[in-house]
Amino acid sequence: MIRLGVVGYGYWGPNIVRNFAEVPGCQLVAVSDMRAERLAMVRARFPTVKTYADPNELVADRRVDAVVIVTPVSTHYDLAMQALKAGKHVLVEKPLAASAEQAMRLVDEAARRQLILSVDHTFVYTGAVRKIRELVTNESLGDVLYYDSVRVNLGLFQHDVNVIWDLAVHDLAIMDHVLPSQPVAVSATGMSHVGNEPENIAYLTLFFPDRLIAHLHVNWLAPVKVRRTLIGGSRKMIVYDDLEPSEKIKVYDKGVTVNGNGNGNGNGNGNNKYRMLIDYRSGDMCAPQLDITEALNTEAKHFIKCVEGGQPTMTDGQAGLRVVRILEAATASIAARGRVIELDAVGCTI
Amino acid sequence: MIRLGVVGYGYWGPNIVRNFAEVPGCQLVAVSDMRAERLAMVRARFPTVKTYADPNELVADRRVDAVVIVTPVSTHYDLAMQALKAGKHVLVEKPLAASAEQAMRLVDEAARRQLILSVDHTFVYTGAVRKIRELVTNESLGDVLYYDSVRVNLGLFQHDVNVIWDLAVHDLAIMDHVLPSQPVAVSATGMSHVGNEPENIAYLTLFFPDRLIAHLHVNWLAPVKVRRTLIGGSRKMIVYDDLEPSEKIKVYDKGVTVNGNGNGNGNGNGNNKYRMLIDYRSGDMCAPQLDITEALNTEAKHFIKCVEGGQPTMTDGQAGLRVVRILEAATASIAARGRVIELDAVGCTI
Amino acid sequence: MIRLGVVGYGYWGPNIVRNFAEVPGCQLVAVSDMRAERLAMVRARFPTVKTYADPNELVADRRVDAVVIVTPVSTHYDLAMQALKAGKHVLVEKPLAASAEQAMRLVDEAARRQLILSVDHTFVYTGAVRKIRELVTNESLGDVLYYDSVRVNLGLFQHDVNVIWDLAVHDLAIMDHVLPSQPVAVSATGMSHVGNEPENIAYLTLFFPDRLIAHLHVNWLAPVKVRRTLIGGSRKMIVYDDLEPSEKIKVYDKGVTVNGNGNGNGNGNGNNKYRMLIDYRSGDMCAPQLDITEALNTEAKHFIKCVEGGQPTMTDGQAGLRVVRILEAATASIAARGRVIELDAVGCTI
Amino acid sequence: MIRLGVVGYGYWGPNIVRNFAEVPGCQLVAVSDMRAERLAMVRARFPTVKTYADPNELVADRRVDAVVIVTPVSTHYDLAMQALKAGKHVLVEKPLAASAEQAMRLVDEAARRQLILSVDHTFVYTGAVRKIRELVTNESLGDVLYYDSVRVNLGLFQHDVNVIWDLAVHDLAIMDHVLPSQPVAVSATGMSHVGNEPENIAYLTLFFPDRLIAHLHVNWLAPVKVRRTLIGGSRKMIVYDDLEPSEKIKVYDKGVTVNGNGNGNGNGNGNNKYRMLIDYRSGDMCAPQLDITEALNTEAKHFIKCVEGGQPTMTDGQAGLRVVRILEAATASIAARGRVIELDAVGCTI
Repeated sequence: MIRLGVVGYGYWGPNIVRNFAEVPGCQLVAVSDMRAERLAMVRARFPTVKTYADPNELVADRRVDAVVIVTPVSTHYDLAMQALKAGKHVLVEKPLAASAEQAMRLVDEAARRQLILSVDHTFVYTGAVRKIRELVTNESLGDVLYYDSVRVNLGLFQHDVNVIWDLAVHDLAIMDHVLPSQPVAVSATGMSHVGNEPENIAYLTLFFPDRLIAHLHVNWLAPVKVRRTLIGGSRKMIVYDDLEPSEKIKVYDKGVTVNGNGNGNGNGNGNNKYRMLIDYRSGDMCAPQLDITEALNTEAKHFIKCVEGGQPTMTDGQAGLRVVRILEAATASIAARGRVIELDAVGCTI
Repeated sequence: MIRLGVVGYGYWGPNIVRNFAEVPGCQLVAVSDMRAERLAMVRARFPTVKTYADPNELVADRRVDAVVIVTPVSTHYDLAMQALKAGKHVLVEKPLAASAEQAMRLVDEAARRQLILSVDHTFVYTGAVRKIRELVTNESLGDVLYYDSVRVNLGLFQHDVNVIWDLAVHDLAIMDHVLPSQPVAVSATGMSHVGNEPENIAYLTLFFPDRLIAHLHVNWLAPVKVRRTLIGGSRKMIVYDDLEPSEKIKVYDKGVTVNGNGNGNGNGNGNNKYRMLIDYRSGDMCAPQLDITEALNTEAKHFIKCVEGGQPTMTDGQAGLRVVRILEAATASIAARGRVIELDAVGCTI
Repeated sequence: MIRLGVVGYGYWGPNIVRNFAEVPGCQLVAVSDMRAERLAMVRARFPTVKTYADPNELVADRRVDAVVIVTPVSTHYDLAMQALKAGKHVLVEKPLAASAEQAMRLVDEAARRQLILSVDHTFVYTGAVRKIRELVTNESLGDVLYYDSVRVNLGLFQHDVNVIWDLAVHDLAIMDHVLPSQPVAVSATGMSHVGNEPENIAYLTLFFPDRLIAHLHVNWLAPVKVRRTLIGGSRKMIVYDDLEPSEKIKVYDKGVTVNGNGNGNGNGNGNNKYRMLIDYRSGDMCAPQLDITEALNTEAKHFIKCVEGGQPTMTDGQAGLRVVRILEAATASIAARGRVIELDAVGCTI
Repeated sequence: MIRLGVVGYGYWGPNIVRNFAEVPGCQLVAVSDMRAERLAMVRARFPTVKTYADPNELVADRRVDAVVIVTPVSTHYDLAMQALKAGKHVLVEKPLAASAEQAMRLVDEAARRQLILSVDHTFVYTGAVRKIRELVTNESLGDVLYYDSVRVNLGLFQHDVNVIWDLAVHDLAIMDHVLPSQPVAVSATGMSHVGNEPENIAYLTLFFPDRLIAHLHVNWLAPVKVRRTLIGGSRKMIVYDDLEPSEKIKVYDKGVTVNGNGNGNGNGNGNNKYRMLIDYRSGDMCAPQLDITEALNTEAKHFIKCVEGGQPTMTDGQAGLRVVRILEAATASIAARGRVIELDAVGCTI
């Protein structure tokens, strides 16, 4: 039985608590929050759970085996490091930390102590993203050519991080899970439209080995909510619309086929000499049935199982670090109006 | 009566011919195409029209007052220059020319000879774009904060120009018409997925004075067709979906309002100190009734009227030049993986 | 302070309990359910609430002022009658009872004892339906010409009632609230596709005074979920799509205008003689901002306020009776393959 | 070579002419229309075609082998009968005639003279409807349970026929082609909202042998255009949305499975005794690639081929008669507010 403590009972915390409370093999033993009224809500629903106003006390509680940290990003590093040093397994809300330096230290510390460090890249545990990974892995898509996501809405402006740390992080987590390679460089642009606030609109291009390219498009100031990703493959292409109540994933048998080059075909036009002959394919579209289990339920079970078995989660500290490195590089690129930033391999493959 | 000659009777030429043939004050007198079967189609439908296999002969025809050039972009400059030198008014299919240098020479030549030079930025003449311009001009939107367009489909790969010269040109033409200022710099990225062909996917960010930013997203290799533009203003925001059969324009009374800064509010949180207090607005949405006249019909009448009156069209050579300059700069930026290219004012305000 | 008891803690009961628990002036004192595990859930969340396995005991509990009945329709009459006879105010889940005879007796009993009898026509309390009522009442729509609703999905087959008692009841409740008159006759058709089960697909036409007509289209065996209502007026028309996350109500300035008859216009065609001259209008569409308060929250407050003040609710026993009468007549019409059933006024205006 | 004459060059006539003009084996020789300006348009486009102001002269023209009649429905019978008596093969725009009596006489006359009589049920020749027929015929759907169509828009009011003769005729033609049996009875309701004009809104229920039921929903006074048909089968279900630019047909692997009856299962509930145990299935959705050839092109070739070979078309006079019989019965049912009208077999199987 893994005894669990949860730090933070704000917006996302109740979802964490509700889901872990139902996982066999896991016992919710403690919750902390600085606000007394939030702790009162915890006690009303879970009378036997110990509540703390001070997160440090929860982390020090010897009955706690594993800690979930659901607090603002600026506090992730201190709380997670403290928990690791106290010998606890740790699951941290995304993004893992506020800098790659911090993320790397957490990864090192967990490795040294042989503790599980996981990051809550929730989308990775959805039926939709698991299906996308399956379609990439089993080569249904062929070579992946591009990943192109639009994630915009009239969102809550955050004061400490810009829109990419809030929204693009989801796509970076999904890409980390489903794409066959890691990006090597990033070019990003963005703008703030409100005072000295962080950027509320941003665009990221990620360059990969071969010809794979990714683009993310995030905006807190859009009149409509859009969550749509196009994934182009040499065989098939995917439209993933997370706002569709069902049919979130549509797989199109569409694309182009190159039939060698066209030189010497003597068609008299002249334009096609030394050019590729391109054929267009347009076949069936299929929307596969998806597992509709709540992602957090799947993730909670997976985390507990990994803690029990001592193996890394699908979204381990390394994954969290890779994502934070890209966020950091993209932020630097935005400041330089799109200048490309190389993502060398340091720290990603410890 | 303006006597019109049309050079090129391929994909777009028949639409040009059909619309000009119905404009009062305009007489279609000649059509040229290098393919005999295309000319046979012209003669079947317009028995009295003179047909030429050689465009040079049409341009030299003394009965012709004005020429419309509907040929591949690489031929625009030579044909248009020749027509201007022969004293003809000229309308050129978009983009105006294959380089800013060429476009500038055409603008100069037309100015020197006091001839009308116009570029077929068709979207400018749609009811939807005219409504957007009206909403910007009458300040319904407030300050324009961003223009963000997605224009993707499984499109015909072109061998001589990349996807931005084919698709982004539409958005650049619309922006040139509706936005209150001109872009000062561009950062663009893209990728070719087929042999040595030009880029089939590309992303452009355009920087403007103040905080206006624009982003264009074009792709020839997408499984679905999307034509959607978001235009964010400080008062209202527009969603323009050109694929909607009606309700192409939706105006949202949504956004944020900044209520001064929040320092000294003593809320004990600390995070909001020296921060903006942001209120979110969410009101009605309205889809205004649009003029559904075919854009080319409106454009044809406008061109003939401008030729008669000697005044520049809404999409004159200067507009064509401004668009080509951006296409050229964006192409350079793509080659440098997003490096920002400044668009200095030379040539834009002759 | 109104002390409330809730009978039934199955699918809908928890929503009732959660909402009434938060209404000022209301104290949740008792919940009954025949299943011990459901009562355990109640006690976990509401430790001070008294639980009963036997609904009769709850109804007899002298501390209870008002009872909400959230049980299968076949039990509504007995439980509601018993509660009224015990002097309790009563709110019953829709439909009010299993027959018009039962519904009428409940209405009579409540009137005799001067108790509040209300039916949970939830949709009446949504922002969308309140906006529709406003648009009808303030004559924005002009004369209402038709109400036309499609309400289909792959739904849970019920064994005791057919699809109209499960789905059409929602539209009948909405119509009762928003339309300016009551239907005078009904013609309905339907079919069962599974054994001897009740009809899983049905169509109802309702005839009203003047030329108002309504049509309901319900289906438990549809591959997609649709909740769309068209309301045609002589001035404007509404599309109400309850599945839209926002913009549930769209108001179209569309329709026809009759310009007198066309006789004697001498147009030589002959077809228009003695015919109406019809002009078509097509103007703006607007989606008004809606109140997004949870309907059950609004309803709970309204019920408690009406109990305190002694006035009938917006969805009182009379409304419940009117709806049940139509359900009963429609069921008879289905059995007669569409034969029209007159809805005389008896019982509707006690 | 079949020499073709076309009677009527109004809204639909030019489409007929354009498509037949391109069919190998067919020569367009004559067109008639009472309006001189329409004939001028014909001559401009087809200089060698003979034009007639009087349709009787075209029908009598000895050079004409086959006649297409594209005139108002009230004239169909006289023109078609005259053409048949002159020994011409005939294709009539839908509906075949203004009454079942007229339609039957045309069928008889064509049979007696061994001439081809066809009706322009255009939808039957679309890729979408051909795919539906294939899915029904190859038993992909299993038993067909229902056909349910909504066909509404702000349409042109007609003065001589009500909305079912204009819109429901399309669905009746499709059903005649794709469903495994013929309807045995109809119940219909409707309403006119403009003066003494024919009904502009109508609802038809069609009863078939076994448990198949169909419902059509047509409206000339709707604020939005809808063309959506649900076809429920015991194995799969179809959504056919004709307004989708692609993916007009979606096939859902959804439905219910009956697992014998549930008596004696001792679950103590009692409700399920003697009841069906119903399982719900929800699998993949697929949108098959459709042939996108213009329907009228396919139809024109098919008609010419049938004339050449002497075999009936897919939409022969019998099909036209079956559809008209239903229209006639439905009109009678509307007048009787939904009274069921039996469709006996007379005339349908000559």
